[in-house]
Amino acid sequence: MFSMLRIDTATETVTKETSDSLEYLLGGRSLSSHLVSEEVNPKCDPFGQENKLFFCNGALSGTNVSSSNRLSIGGKSPLTSGIKESNAGGIVATRMAQQGLRCIALEGTPPPNSGWRIVVIGRTGTEFLDGSFLAGKGVYEKSDLLSEKFGSKAGCITIGPAGENLLYASGIACSDPHGVCSRYAGRGGLGAVMGSKKIIALVILDDGDRKPDYVDQEKFNAAAKQIIKLLKENPISSKFTKYGTSAMVDICQALKVLPTQNFRHGVMEGAERINAQALYDTIKERDGEGKTQHACMLPCAIMCSNVYPDKEGHLLCSPIEYETMALMGSNLCLKNLDTIAEMNRIANDVGVDTLDCGAAIGVAMEAGLAEFGDDKAAVAMMEEIRHLTPLGRIIASGCKIAAQVLGVKHAPHVLGQAIPAYEPRGSKGMAMTYLSSPMGADHTFGFTLRDEEDTLTKKGKVDLSKKFQVIGSRMDAMGTCNFVRYSVRNDMTPLLDLIAARYGVEVSGEQFDDMVKKTLRIEHQFNTDAGITIADHRFAETFYVEKQPETGEVIDFTDEETLQAMQW
Amino acid sequence: MFSMLRIDTATETVTKETSDSLEYLLGGRSLSSHLVSEEVNPKCDPFGQENKLFFCNGALSGTNVSSSNRLSIGGKSPLTSGIKESNAGGIVATRMAQQGLRCIALEGTPPPNSGWRIVVIGRTGTEFLDGSFLAGKGVYEKSDLLSEKFGSKAGCITIGPAGENLLYASGIACSDPHGVCSRYAGRGGLGAVMGSKKIIALVILDDGDRKPDYVDQEKFNAAAKQIIKLLKENPISSKFTKYGTSAMVDICQALKVLPTQNFRHGVMEGAERINAQALYDTIKERDGEGKTQHACMLPCAIMCSNVYPDKEGHLLCSPIEYETMALMGSNLCLKNLDTIAEMNRIANDVGVDTLDCGAAIGVAMEAGLAEFGDDKAAVAMMEEIRHLTPLGRIIASGCKIAAQVLGVKHAPHVLGQAIPAYEPRGSKGMAMTYLSSPMGADHTFGFTLRDEEDTLTKKGKVDLSKKFQVIGSRMDAMGTCNFVRYSVRNDMTPLLDLIAARYGVEVSGEQFDDMVKKTLRIEHQFNTDAGITIADHRFAETFYVEKQPETGEVIDFTDEETLQAMQW
Repeated sequence: MFSMLRIDTATETVTKETSDSLEYLLGGRSLSSHLVSEEVNPKCDPFGQENKLFFCNGALSGTNVSSSNRLSIGGKSPLTSGIKESNAGGIVATRMAQQGLRCIALEGTPPPNSGWRIVVIGRTGTEFLDGSFLAGKGVYEKSDLLSEKFGSKAGCITIGPAGENLLYASGIACSDPHGVCSRYAGRGGLGAVMGSKKIIALVILDDGDRKPDYVDQEKFNAAAKQIIKLLKENPISSKFTKYGTSAMVDICQALKVLPTQNFRHGVMEGAERINAQALYDTIKERDGEGKTQHACMLPCAIMCSNVYPDKEGHLLCSPIEYETMALMGSNLCLKNLDTIAEMNRIANDVGVDTLDCGAAIGVAMEAGLAEFGDDKAAVAMMEEIRHLTPLGRIIASGCKIAAQVLGVKHAPHVLGQAIPAYEPRGSKGMAMTYLSSPMGADHTFGFTLRDEEDTLTKKGKVDLSKKFQVIGSRMDAMGTCNFVRYSVRNDMTPLLDLIAARYGVEVSGEQFDDMVKKTLRIEHQFNTDAGITIADHRFAETFYVEKQPETGEVIDFTDEETLQAMQW
Repeated sequence: MFSMLRIDTATETVTKETSDSLEYLLGGRSLSSHLVSEEVNPKCDPFGQENKLFFCNGALSGTNVSSSNRLSIGGKSPLTSGIKESNAGGIVATRMAQQGLRCIALEGTPPPNSGWRIVVIGRTGTEFLDGSFLAGKGVYEKSDLLSEKFGSKAGCITIGPAGENLLYASGIACSDPHGVCSRYAGRGGLGAVMGSKKIIALVILDDGDRKPDYVDQEKFNAAAKQIIKLLKENPISSKFTKYGTSAMVDICQALKVLPTQNFRHGVMEGAERINAQALYDTIKERDGEGKTQHACMLPCAIMCSNVYPDKEGHLLCSPIEYETMALMGSNLCLKNLDTIAEMNRIANDVGVDTLDCGAAIGVAMEAGLAEFGDDKAAVAMMEEIRHLTPLGRIIASGCKIAAQVLGVKHAPHVLGQAIPAYEPRGSKGMAMTYLSSPMGADHTFGFTLRDEEDTLTKKGKVDLSKKFQVIGSRMDAMGTCNFVRYSVRNDMTPLLDLIAARYGVEVSGEQFDDMVKKTLRIEHQFNTDAGITIADHRFAETFYVEKQPETGEVIDFTDEETLQAMQW
């Protein structure tokens, strides 16, 4: 049996429920989207009484299997007005497992003008504490204060000033293995949903004593080793081990899909100044606290994360990911890793999604508020968020609203969520993935780029996107890191073997994929019931009529093709 | 036969078409919504190539019938993402009639970075002139420059800096009888649509020589006199003659529906300081250029407009309407007519809707950016629009976006358009009208307030709203002023007699109402095709869960009831 802790923020009461359904067994997005779909009124105000936040760990959380401790957070998104699952690494999923929890639900909203609360979950029960001492503080300071109060090994979930102020691009920050809340479920504005419930931190104490028990320990250990072997042998995972996701800079530049100058271009002159090698060399050269091969969760054999040090070798930001390097780098024509790291640090501190805010700054630059390539201006815009100025609020509202307010037609989003770091006119597979995602423009669940024979034709891309929507969603579906997908590809046997050995439940590959597809189906259904239509599954008109200079391409998909990719 | 001038802003070519369909005969909203529905892709970008703007006069434009020269402007709205008809008084409809035109269409968009153009329509043809000398200037200065260049009797249509900058609450300003562009088609952001087409002014010269010809002049004259008689005899119209729409302040205060403190309350202490009598007395006392009983168009027997003078007797703003007095007055807890007039003047000058911007300032005050009741702060916020600061842009984006960016849950809008000056929890009839309008929250077409037996019960309000949706829409349907409805009520005979005498076309009351209902039907259909669903036809959640203090009421309509009121 799997347990869910329901926390009613209106009455400050807590109840526990159990279930042994397949959704609970798998956890992750299978569970979070199931619960949102079952329990949240699709038409509700994302900041209102009817929205809920579900924090779910996965089937293998708390075990010694590599890369299995992602935390899926689900709810209705203010940014897309639809269903959202956003997941993060860190240690929270592990702490939940140690407390015997598969899911924590935050429900209701307290009366207007209620103060900030911290919810603390431990072996002896759940407490509500005054959280006012955290209010208005940056996430780094919040992390320190939480560590001081609850120990650096507690699993903490918090939000920044952006989330406290209900800004639409706010993320949720989770403790990393060092006790710093720097692992973000960044997308879709769920930080603002947490803010609307006046919960400034959710702490899972390190006093849990539940250890995973195994139906077949030997088989489990063998399968866990097999996963490590697969990860080590796989050339993509092992490249991530050395370079992290920054390896994508050169790949995208070569494919002409590196977002540049507010998604006007797919190539940036000087991109090598912010590529994987430049990042690697800078970290190695500065040394100090800097690190390549860094794990966001324990255990992990991939270790794609990094610690980027400043010139004195002190931690400036951890991690710096490719998506941020593109959206806060090339997309703004910035070619200085220190600038990107500085912006990333501020984003983490104020608690916003680096993608949507990077895209919003691109929009602001196109509107003439600053020059593309102006490092100081870009950092200053991030600082505006910290000071909650009108411009800061515009940027922290994400690129769709920024484009509306600043009068920019070339707004890089689908369904209200900023396009990730692959220019869609130059990759028709990624374009179809963005168009048909129930989460708004998203790359994690239908990552076609490495498998497109011809990136410029739309031929076959509906099917290709659908294929990778399943492959990517499999990982989310059980709380496993997305990068494990390169190693298992179309054969889930190693992971399903682990589930069988752990729980004694045999899930066939077919059954598992049925659950993955069912999840996509209920997500789209939630969105339909929320009032989202095919008219929302579109790029801005400019992507259809203005050719990407490097490829001569425009988006040429029809609504019917998008609908096809949404049928499950 | 009725003529339409199609102006392609991409190629600067002009073509003329004719039609004798009933839609063309009636003009007004019958024609504008017909054309939008037939010709605009509902899913298009409102600022893109596929949107069009239709300027339509009405069946009796150019005749001597009182109150018959409204100009209906139609297109897809950036504010609501749906169909929009917004109409204004002034002299443009008359000038179009004198040029033999029923409709002017602005189509396409010029290439990126094109300069501003003025389109000049006269007896000898249509010209495109450089409009760069108008760019960035306020509407008052634009008016002067246009009068200078084209004569004070030309019918001019222009936009303010807000429209030039694609801000969502931008209106379209039309010449009044004195050559000042102060007659606004304010709602729905059509000024930004005009801006997206890079047309900074549309001028219909005063050299038209077409006079209305009549199938039966004698019958026409008799019917025209009958209209005047009806207007003079009607107590509501005649109250409007003395006080204008400001007569509503006391009525709404008594009914507890005067929007106060960001629609938190329905009663404002001290409302008598901004009521009809206060306005009347101030104008009379200051004298000078001040005027009660002022006509927005010629001829008009109602003359509900006014000219509000400053302390020295110079024109400060003309007109000041009840809707503005509420949204920029009581809604902000402001009790000073001079402040309201000053804000109204700035709104007219920068080219924005006073309702949506008033509501946005209310939201900003609730967010803590200024105190309610702070006159200086309210004026300063309007000045921010002039300077296009980030805060100014937020306010000129209307109250929905302002609430999103500023983190305010009590956002007074439906379908993205600000609620007009009747607190919906205190008038269930008006609430249903707001909910079910295809235009976003709107009061002109389903004004139930004067006919609600019990404003606090929802019982019977679906039917009452539908009844008045027809009564109100009848006026829009032929370019007649909305206030004529009080005189004709359920009997359109006098107006249909005029049509018969003018054109020799007998339209029965039933046929006419069929057209009115068909228009509502195609408007809702356009919205459905644009991706609008019942989920958009809702107030913010707070209106459903927080009681209006004065009445103890919340919105209690179901989606099914709203849908019922949308069936035609």
